[in-house]
Amino acid sequence: MKTRIAVVAAVAAVGLAIVWSQDAQRTVSLVITGGTVVTMDPAGRVIPDGALAIDGADIVAVDTADVIARQFRGAEAIDAAGHVVLPGLINTHTHAPMVLYRGLADDLALMEWLNKYIFPAEAKTVSPEFVRAGTRLAALEMIQSGTTTYADMYYFEEEIAKETKAAGLRGVLGQTVVQFPVADAKTPAEALTRAEAFIQTFKNDPLITPAVAPHAMYTLDGPMLTASRELARKHGVPTLIHLAETRDEVQGAEERFKTSPVRYLDGLGFLGPGVLAAHAVWVSEPEIAILKSRGVGVSHNPESNMKLASGTAPVPAYLREGVALGLGTDGAASNNDLDMFEAMRLASFLHKLHTGDPRVVNAREALAMATIGGARALGMERSIGSLEPDKRADVIVVGMRGARQTPMYDPISHLVYVTRGDDVQTTIVAGKVLMRNRKVLTLDEASVLSEARDWAEKVRAAVN
Amino acid sequence: MKTRIAVVAAVAAVGLAIVWSQDAQRTVSLVITGGTVVTMDPAGRVIPDGALAIDGADIVAVDTADVIARQFRGAEAIDAAGHVVLPGLINTHTHAPMVLYRGLADDLALMEWLNKYIFPAEAKTVSPEFVRAGTRLAALEMIQSGTTTYADMYYFEEEIAKETKAAGLRGVLGQTVVQFPVADAKTPAEALTRAEAFIQTFKNDPLITPAVAPHAMYTLDGPMLTASRELARKHGVPTLIHLAETRDEVQGAEERFKTSPVRYLDGLGFLGPGVLAAHAVWVSEPEIAILKSRGVGVSHNPESNMKLASGTAPVPAYLREGVALGLGTDGAASNNDLDMFEAMRLASFLHKLHTGDPRVVNAREALAMATIGGARALGMERSIGSLEPDKRADVIVVGMRGARQTPMYDPISHLVYVTRGDDVQTTIVAGKVLMRNRKVLTLDEASVLSEARDWAEKVRAAVN
Repeated sequence: MKTRIAVVAAVAAVGLAIVWSQDAQRTVSLVITGGTVVTMDPAGRVIPDGALAIDGADIVAVDTADVIARQFRGAEAIDAAGHVVLPGLINTHTHAPMVLYRGLADDLALMEWLNKYIFPAEAKTVSPEFVRAGTRLAALEMIQSGTTTYADMYYFEEEIAKETKAAGLRGVLGQTVVQFPVADAKTPAEALTRAEAFIQTFKNDPLITPAVAPHAMYTLDGPMLTASRELARKHGVPTLIHLAETRDEVQGAEERFKTSPVRYLDGLGFLGPGVLAAHAVWVSEPEIAILKSRGVGVSHNPESNMKLASGTAPVPAYLREGVALGLGTDGAASNNDLDMFEAMRLASFLHKLHTGDPRVVNAREALAMATIGGARALGMERSIGSLEPDKRADVIVVGMRGARQTPMYDPISHLVYVTRGDDVQTTIVAGKVLMRNRKVLTLDEASVLSEARDWAEKVRAAVN
Repeated sequence: MKTRIAVVAAVAAVGLAIVWSQDAQRTVSLVITGGTVVTMDPAGRVIPDGALAIDGADIVAVDTADVIARQFRGAEAIDAAGHVVLPGLINTHTHAPMVLYRGLADDLALMEWLNKYIFPAEAKTVSPEFVRAGTRLAALEMIQSGTTTYADMYYFEEEIAKETKAAGLRGVLGQTVVQFPVADAKTPAEALTRAEAFIQTFKNDPLITPAVAPHAMYTLDGPMLTASRELARKHGVPTLIHLAETRDEVQGAEERFKTSPVRYLDGLGFLGPGVLAAHAVWVSEPEIAILKSRGVGVSHNPESNMKLASGTAPVPAYLREGVALGLGTDGAASNNDLDMFEAMRLASFLHKLHTGDPRVVNAREALAMATIGGARALGMERSIGSLEPDKRADVIVVGMRGARQTPMYDPISHLVYVTRGDDVQTTIVAGKVLMRNRKVLTLDEASVLSEARDWAEKVRAAVN
């Protein structure tokens, strides 16, 4: 009799425990569970059977699958078993609509490429409609390859912003300012006016960070560089610029100003937090110290630098000095795609070869450049770049079970050395699923591809 | 009445014409039609709406889809509309079973990598069973990524040959000869005995070309290098060797023999037609002339050379001097995959950067290295490497319709600059379809991956 009562009491206690545990579970919008979670947090945590609780636009918790299951119930669930769960990739330098020019001309000297192909094509095709079609195609490719945030410099950037938002991507989008007449502005002053209107329209957008994009120190005079920077400072938005990309740029600066591009901009008071310098290839050690002390972010573009034969950026020195360093693909006219996994791999390969040391830019450093490093370079490290509670839920689920990825000894090695954008299964930005099991949900793939092919006919006609 | 007779006569004439045309059609085993055919033939023909007639193991005709449709009826047909039809890719340097070590250790100095990881792992795991499982995995990856012929150097090469044949791939397979004891031979003399038995077994095989693979000039003494070469000459089979891969190899040769690796081998009478030199990184201009005059083939491995920081091979000079130049991935322990599209892209990127000239190694040259150039380097240019009548039907159909490949201005640019192995849809060797619409037909994918994961457990245990 005593035994029976004890058993009943025990059963009742277990029942109570279950009820209590269920009551303690918080319902959140999305739980991703069962994968290897590569957090890229400051401790570098990799959780083999991990999970993520997401509520609305934010990450609520990152832990083992067991702990998350005890604490959270997801209104929606994603099973990531056999996959890797990773912060969404951050492409810190693109010209998104230029996907419509990819492969139009390759293997040419820079001036022939620009003068015979890119400039004539741009003169005859760039329009709001072109830019929107190009952005849709670029967004499709980025979502499919795991990029969740991108930094962009092009014309009609407000159109790019609308399409980026519609696709559900996060963008740091810079309205281009350049001295000569371009498709969306006859003068740099007009470009600045357009940039300010753009900033005002998108200033409080949760996905779009408007920015000013003075093209480069060799395509703008000093007053216009300063005016661009002042506009960005006035509104507290980022400034995106090409910097020290080619030897020609350095030689030009020496001839015209008796100084280097970095020192010239520094002399104008241009450099400071909020500036993202794309390429930064031809930068000396003392100039690296200037970039670091001014809090400038750098976007490294290994594929573009190789294909255009621009040179080799001093990446090991940037890493050693702690410069905020992100990774970019550059526009697809000069790369020719937007796959950030390949950018990681090439960043690692290139600097190993260049230094003669296979230990340089290891897999974790390459992955950091494409995630938390990019966030730092954009000044967004408090909201994106790693999987941590209270950050935005920008997350990708990467397939890791194909022949090319078998066996797997180390997920970080595999992410950098054998993974491609096509392995990404699921892409989430601000808690919203943009692609699930390779099906893009925010864009109609067939119509995006079809309109891109129509534009290609016009581009072809423009250069013939 | 007259009109009616005329109509009847006309109908009868058309009927006759149809009958005549059908009679003139030859029935062949396979017709591939509707794609852009990139032939890589001496004229460099690209046929936009092209087709291929294949009978048995051979290509019968390559022409427009119309002409092929008039002349041939395929017992089987493959619709390649929207795709590119290309000669199967030729990987001129691999160690196939090392896929089982991919990602085991990266980012290490060469000696640490070898002594702490690769040598201990090989000592405890290399066996006929390991080699067979590794070859199955490598074959799966190669078929999936469009490689139809590969050159290999490893241990138990007869087991590799059996699996290669079973998978339906073409292989130039070299039995390794090395001075120190290895898994399949205690002495180099024993290795030579095994190599000769291997040659005799596979000498007349339609898919397997047996070869002798003396490892390198620094891992064999002069008599054994000579004996290896003599064995290959005696049987008229290729000789595969690593050559001038690292600066250390060159310094060692200088110290021990007061000469360079190339000159040392030439002094032994080793160099000649049938020799394939892998890497050939540290080769001077006069030594390039030696390789050319001796008819040596070269295998360029840009990814391995970058990741291991070995150096930059003088590829523009090889091309200029007309050295038979192929492309390779190297073993997956040092790359870490077998994707020849990435090897093409990196060959182009690397030499543009190294020379500072974006015109160097253009897309067509990179594609040639992976196809007809590889065939020349292996001495097989009369049977493979291009789509021409009377060559073997080694053909791949490459998907070209994804977002990353849209729009397409030039198929050759796209093949090199934006395509990955995963875009390959169909792989055919000697007229046999090994993969159709991404489904591999000659290997059971799930069991190949599962046994590879089992082997990985043993590898992990061996290095811990």
